[in-house]
Amino acid sequence: MSHSSSKLLIETAQLRQAIRRQEHTGPTSGLATGAMQGNVVILPQAYANEFLLYCQKNPVACPLIGVSEVGDYRLPTLGHDIDIRHDVPEYYVYRDGVKVESLNDIEALWQEDMVAFVLGCSFSFEHALSTAGLPPRNIELGVNVSMFETNIATVPAGRFHGNTVVTMRPYTPKDAIRAIQITTRFPKAHGAPLHFGSPEAIGIRDLSQPEFGDPVTIKDQEVPVFWACGVTPQLAIRNAKPPICITHAPGKMLITDILDTDLAVL
Amino acid sequence: MSHSSSKLLIETAQLRQAIRRQEHTGPTSGLATGAMQGNVVILPQAYANEFLLYCQKNPVACPLIGVSEVGDYRLPTLGHDIDIRHDVPEYYVYRDGVKVESLNDIEALWQEDMVAFVLGCSFSFEHALSTAGLPPRNIELGVNVSMFETNIATVPAGRFHGNTVVTMRPYTPKDAIRAIQITTRFPKAHGAPLHFGSPEAIGIRDLSQPEFGDPVTIKDQEVPVFWACGVTPQLAIRNAKPPICITHAPGKMLITDILDTDLAVL
Repeated sequence: MSHSSSKLLIETAQLRQAIRRQEHTGPTSGLATGAMQGNVVILPQAYANEFLLYCQKNPVACPLIGVSEVGDYRLPTLGHDIDIRHDVPEYYVYRDGVKVESLNDIEALWQEDMVAFVLGCSFSFEHALSTAGLPPRNIELGVNVSMFETNIATVPAGRFHGNTVVTMRPYTPKDAIRAIQITTRFPKAHGAPLHFGSPEAIGIRDLSQPEFGDPVTIKDQEVPVFWACGVTPQLAIRNAKPPICITHAPGKMLITDILDTDLAVL
Repeated sequence: MSHSSSKLLIETAQLRQAIRRQEHTGPTSGLATGAMQGNVVILPQAYANEFLLYCQKNPVACPLIGVSEVGDYRLPTLGHDIDIRHDVPEYYVYRDGVKVESLNDIEALWQEDMVAFVLGCSFSFEHALSTAGLPPRNIELGVNVSMFETNIATVPAGRFHGNTVVTMRPYTPKDAIRAIQITTRFPKAHGAPLHFGSPEAIGIRDLSQPEFGDPVTIKDQEVPVFWACGVTPQLAIRNAKPPICITHAPGKMLITDILDTDLAVL
């Protein structure tokens, strides 16, 4: 292990502990850069196999990087000390497909039949974009990334179906071409964009009103560029209506010990 | 050598001979697909070193794939039987930077001090685009690709300077993203696009009036995508004003025996 990666592991462990102690309850974009962040979906076993199939059928929106054993709140392949009941800054609780509350800790809700899924997140390539001189606007502004529901249907699996959610980052066309090349290297972090340009073409009405996250400025000569987002399963969960489901709050992710570069291709 | 590549070499040899006999004097887009095609610039030795430096400084617009010995009209590394005096469907002759005539054979103009340069061409990735289900519109329509002068300055070298010429192929944003990934694999054929979207942003006024080649239809939801073009040197030659310079006519290229895939990366 290189000096810089061991330094990063100390940083990720410290950040995860701060989250566990509820000292950090905000967005995680731009934090512990270089460490992979994950979207979280926790479901009862009776829904887990269908959701696993949903991820398999929609690998761009739902790139699975970890699954827990049934009833086990640990995810040792993603971090030796992860406890998924405590290690996300903010959780959303869905009952019968309706979001009923948000919490900073879900120990009280944990059930013996629960399975935790972790999906890669576009924050993983934000570090690579910044290093290439293309910092995402949300990083520059210090806000959560803009997220939108589109009219791009996912492939259904059992009770899970719904449209794709995307993140948006504005770039000039020249920089967008470079960003497409860079993000192609990160298939486990949603890879290349799905779309650029006209928001209407994918069913987005108003870029200043994201469904999740914060709006960002789009400068003259820039076009919006859209990547698939790990919030997509939350729309499918609304449709599948499991008696209980717990997710991360959009933009407030699980910090893992996996390096972004470990899952990069090329 | 595989069966299909030996079959292709027969096809390229036959096409080159048909061009040599002046039986084929038209555009070469879509012909001998799989074989690399080349842009041609022939200059007196007194200008050759500066032009070589110009190519080195502008590798995206001017990806050099072959240079002849001084006075030698053969290019054995590109094809064992190539004779650059006969093997291009149509030549442009520039004197003092002004195009004075077009010819189908330049044997009468060959000089003992001439050096032939061959530059990669975007036609090399058109085959890969078509194979991926993204046939360029010019291939679908059976016309020459649209070429435009932009306001993107090249890096000067000695007497050579000028703006970048681009080819344009329209795609939906989704297909453009895939086309960016595919063409990135072909750095010796201009690689990824330089720009997409607004033509005005790179100094193009009217997409229906290309400076070289033919106009193509742009469908609803499509955006123009612009790649650097090997016609770029012809603008630099107008500025450098060598006493004589011979080039290919835009879209009517030298057919080589190099496979597109031989120069692909990844």
